[in-house]
Order: sequence, then structure tokens, then C-alpha cells
Amino acid sequence: MQPSYIEHIGIAVSKLDEVIPYYEQILGTKCYSIEEVADQKVRTAFFKVGQTKIELLEPTCPESTIAKWLEKNPRGGVHHIAFNVDDVQAALTECEENGIQLIDKTPRKGAENLNIGFLHPKSTHGVLTEQCEQPK
Amino acid sequence: MQPSYIEHIGIAVSKLDEVIPYYEQILGTKCYSIEEVADQKVRTAFFKVGQTKIELLEPTCPESTIAKWLEKNPRGGVHHIAFNVDDVQAALTECEENGIQLIDKTPRKGAENLNIGFLHPKSTHGVLTEQCEQPK
Repeated sequence: MQPSYIEHIGIAVSKLDEVIPYYEQILGTKCYSIEEVADQKVRTAFFKVGQTKIELLEPTCPESTIAKWLEKNPRGGVHHIAFNVDDVQAALTECEENGIQLIDKTPRKGAENLNIGFLHPKSTHGVLTEQCEQPK
Repeated sequence: MQPSYIEHIGIAVSKLDEVIPYYEQILGTKCYSIEEVADQKVRTAFFKVGQTKIELLEPTCPESTIAKWLEKNPRGGVHHIAFNVDDVQAALTECEENGIQLIDKTPRKGAENLNIGFLHPKSTHGVLTEQCEQPK
């Protein structure tokens, strides 16, 4: 299944408030949404650049996977990239049939109500990769 | 200066030949170009996803900055993101005026003949960031 565009780039940060001004300056656009995703233990901030969103991810507790990622990468950095597909379940199934290990075998809900599924970075040459589908 | 879209995502890999098949599968599209950039001591492979390119970067010698990056991140991963701007010199100057440290004060030539300039990750919250302009 061919993704139509890069839906977002997920960037881990320790504190949203310290990083939002930088992206507002470099992107020449305001953060358009801040949302807490309780399931993922993150608070997110979104910016739009052409077809793609920049999604800043701040951990809301020490058990957040983003908190653990930041322990290894204290400056922050690119945490994952996400492709937009028409049918995320079909995309995940196709990946698995092609030998790609999955984190999510079935889609779950992500930020902005997207239907999402992650591939395992062991299978993706170090790049944590998400497939996502716009909500119907 | 407002970037118009994400021009590319640069992904460091040890061996292009081992990673190209994965991206051809997941993107459902063939690698459309392989190019050596002698100045940066890398061999690159390109894919297109909507407005954005995936640029795989393989070091051509141990002195390559990509080789050094891979020593710290042996699995590979996202090395940089690049914004498309109309005028890269103006974008770099504006960044510097806003207190962002630059790697390149003036543009140089990158892969695909783009005019490019890098910002310093010390100023960009851990994300190595490139501004780039299409060749005239």
C-alpha cells in the first residue's frame, strides 16, 4: 500500500513550553493545537508545514515511552515518522506479510483521532515508523 | 520565512543496498535516484512520498559525518529534516537574527543540486535541521 504523504514527524521534547517558540519561529506559523493523549502518556503540540505536521511530544509521567527515550537522548530529537495511508489495517497486514515486525497488529486511536499502528524499529532500520489513517 | 513543505527526511544507514528494499516495499515506489555527494562523503538514495523525499545516506569513508553518527547509532535512524524555502540565504540570515546558531552561514550545494544550509542542533532542540532551496 502506497502512503500518500508524510502525515507527521514526531519529535520528543522535555518541555513543550521551551520548544514551541522555536518551531513557531522557524516555521513562521503558530502551534495550532495542544492535546494530551492519555493512552500514550504524552502531551502533544502540532504545527503544519505543507502536507506534513510537526508533532512535539512531551512525556506526562516517568513511565511514558517518551520519558524513557529522552533518558537516552536528553537533548530530544526525531522520535518517529508517520505515513498517511487509506487503510491502516490493510497497511499493517501487508507489512506483516512482508516480514516486517509490528508493534500494533490492529489499529488504535492516536492524537487528532487518527487510526494508527506502529511498526517495530527492529524491522525498520532504526526508524520508529507509524502508519496512520484519517478518521472517517 | 515560512517553509512551504518538508523537502526531505535524511536517514542514516550503514549500507544502502540493505535498506533500499525495505523502503521500496513500505513506500510502494522505487528508489528513483542514487547519487554520490563527494563534498559530504555520502552516497544517497531517494524516494518520493507526496511532497517529501526520503533520503537515505550511506557514508563513503570513515571520516564522513554519517559514519561518525552511525558509531553512536549503529542501527541507523533519522539524521536530519529539511525544510523547503524560497530563499535559503534569507532563511539562514533570519535564523541567525533570531539567535539560532548556524553550521552554514552561506548556502552550499547539496544532493540534487539543491542550495542548502544547516542549523546547529544545539539551537534546534536536538533535531539537525536543514534549510534548502530548489536550484534555479
